[in-house]
Amino acid sequence: MAKKPASSKSGGAPVNVSVKDKKTLTSLRRVADDVATCADSGRAPHLDVPSRSLSNVRFNKTKRFLEMGGGTNRRELFNLSQAKSYMQTLLISSGCKRLIEQGKTTSLRGLYYMLKHTIEGTKEETFEDQEDSDSVIEDVEVTLDSLREEMHLYASNRGNLVGPITFIDNGDTIDCTRMGSAGYSIPSICEPDVIQFKDCKADFILHVEKDTVWRRFAEDKFWKKHNCIVSHGGGQPPRGVRRLLHRLHNELKLPVYCLLDNDPWGYYIYSVLKQGSINLAFESVRMGIPEAKYIGLRSKDFDRCKLSNSVKINLNDQDIKRAKQIAEYPWFKDKKPWQKEIQTMLGQGFKLEVESLISKDISYVTEEYVPARLQDKDWLD
Amino acid sequence: MAKKPASSKSGGAPVNVSVKDKKTLTSLRRVADDVATCADSGRAPHLDVPSRSLSNVRFNKTKRFLEMGGGTNRRELFNLSQAKSYMQTLLISSGCKRLIEQGKTTSLRGLYYMLKHTIEGTKEETFEDQEDSDSVIEDVEVTLDSLREEMHLYASNRGNLVGPITFIDNGDTIDCTRMGSAGYSIPSICEPDVIQFKDCKADFILHVEKDTVWRRFAEDKFWKKHNCIVSHGGGQPPRGVRRLLHRLHNELKLPVYCLLDNDPWGYYIYSVLKQGSINLAFESVRMGIPEAKYIGLRSKDFDRCKLSNSVKINLNDQDIKRAKQIAEYPWFKDKKPWQKEIQTMLGQGFKLEVESLISKDISYVTEEYVPARLQDKDWLD
Repeated sequence: MAKKPASSKSGGAPVNVSVKDKKTLTSLRRVADDVATCADSGRAPHLDVPSRSLSNVRFNKTKRFLEMGGGTNRRELFNLSQAKSYMQTLLISSGCKRLIEQGKTTSLRGLYYMLKHTIEGTKEETFEDQEDSDSVIEDVEVTLDSLREEMHLYASNRGNLVGPITFIDNGDTIDCTRMGSAGYSIPSICEPDVIQFKDCKADFILHVEKDTVWRRFAEDKFWKKHNCIVSHGGGQPPRGVRRLLHRLHNELKLPVYCLLDNDPWGYYIYSVLKQGSINLAFESVRMGIPEAKYIGLRSKDFDRCKLSNSVKINLNDQDIKRAKQIAEYPWFKDKKPWQKEIQTMLGQGFKLEVESLISKDISYVTEEYVPARLQDKDWLD
Repeated sequence: MAKKPASSKSGGAPVNVSVKDKKTLTSLRRVADDVATCADSGRAPHLDVPSRSLSNVRFNKTKRFLEMGGGTNRRELFNLSQAKSYMQTLLISSGCKRLIEQGKTTSLRGLYYMLKHTIEGTKEETFEDQEDSDSVIEDVEVTLDSLREEMHLYASNRGNLVGPITFIDNGDTIDCTRMGSAGYSIPSICEPDVIQFKDCKADFILHVEKDTVWRRFAEDKFWKKHNCIVSHGGGQPPRGVRRLLHRLHNELKLPVYCLLDNDPWGYYIYSVLKQGSINLAFESVRMGIPEAKYIGLRSKDFDRCKLSNSVKINLNDQDIKRAKQIAEYPWFKDKKPWQKEIQTMLGQGFKLEVESLISKDISYVTEEYVPARLQDKDWLD
């Protein structure tokens, strides 16, 4: 598609292929080999892509993970309705192979541009828009059983943390107690070959929803008093944050507490941290933290904390609809405390943001609210 | 409003008030003293708030800064239509005084919640919603001639940088060549009492629009080859990023080059970095960088870089409208190269994103595009 002399300056240098990269490359090559085998034996090349439809997803109550069933969709080259998606799947696979071999990473949008072109002799584009390629990337992820990060693709980078832990990040030693006023910037790729845990003295992780709330905890040195890591994901946490929390939880056995708003959006953030998203069930086992606890605001806090009417925010129709949907999620459906929580919010007709606690005192949230919840083990599971 | 014993744990500790804080406190006290003086002398208390309307803003072509004229609006306590905004202005002032005295900072939303309450004996709220208080915060900024950061208020924290510079950030020494794969996280407050420049070897700053593009530059160690700082602001750069770039440019004399998309949004980001926003003209002198150069994509790049039709994105009505508005900005209006650039884009009918260069090669942007622009001094001013 394009000449590549320039890239040889950095891209062509011998690249250290990590164990993880070798594994991904092997999976990618297997896809290609299958095509060749089919062709050699005179059979029509095809791919069996695990089905990502909801009917192929189930919640394993014992393991508390979303799991994909065995359903697959066949994509055949010599089938008019499947040829395009077959070609797209191979194109994405070959693009990722190129990234890994060159030791480079790119964004979903980057890969889209890298592979988008008009197919020779036609007016057909390989991908119409980025949604088109994003969806095929997910197909390749499930086909290879690889996270997109392992295919050298990254999502947006957002989120910070502070606390008594030292990382090796891309060779740099990062003491997260000494990273300045914004803390350590959590990278978009947090796989073990990029981030290693060198030393951790923290007892737990407090994950807060917003950077503005995080700053209160950082300023009050909450992490020092309570010997913990305090992280945020700038709202809905990006994949890098989820993956890092997952690894900290599983490899270092740190409990994770989530301080979120008492509204459907806060519930949803908790749900994604805990179980992953239903549409991306396959990643749940490497991103989800089923043991994560919700210590966010509760409907009872209006009375318990003696909040004033001024801080109430009325639920709108969208909130009510979302709350009812979330109540039906398999991991909330059988949990009485969650059902009660959501019903109370709906009954009261208003939501509460973490920031509203500032109406009590600037540091009420760090000095009273969270310490009391932790001491009383008063959280939702 | 609320009892405050808890805050004494940290808030009541003797707080080191910096020189900057003392200056802001003095301005705040002057506002309060004026009220007392009026009351003592039997006059109606009032405030003269510099007018933030467009008619009171002009572009100083010599200094290349937006300036506010001398127009003010009087707010009187004993005037039915002004009493509320008068009280709100004093309320915000007193809230900021409290923050400074306690040595704490909060977000705009935090201050809103801190001060929102039902006025005793009435059903009137001090602020209906956050827009209400945000606007008064801007009034107080112009009245005191203080940035909101000096009043201990912060905006969202977003943006990262990498390169040969060492900061002291809140007492921590930060070597920005060794901050891991996401780089140094630029704080929301970058005032001199928080961030000091310890050592800088960089020759210039390359500011890129998005974190995803930034990662390409970080991965390719562009900052090392070209001895520069590479920053991003996650789209429209937040105030912290603008303030830090402003300080680096003015205190360390580093030229700033902006690598942005060839679309109205990219032009607008450049415009804000360069001149500030028209609505917040008063901050322009401490946030704007009139000498910043645009080395983002150009309409001619489609031919010059031999890009394929696949990467074109058609302009929509909104793009066309915005482009025409931006062409009328006082700092673009008299500049032929900018007028030509915008007309060419409108004539071609499509926009180009920086990411589209990846269709040439993964590292084309870091190894060919930007080095060539810098070498040829081919930028827009």
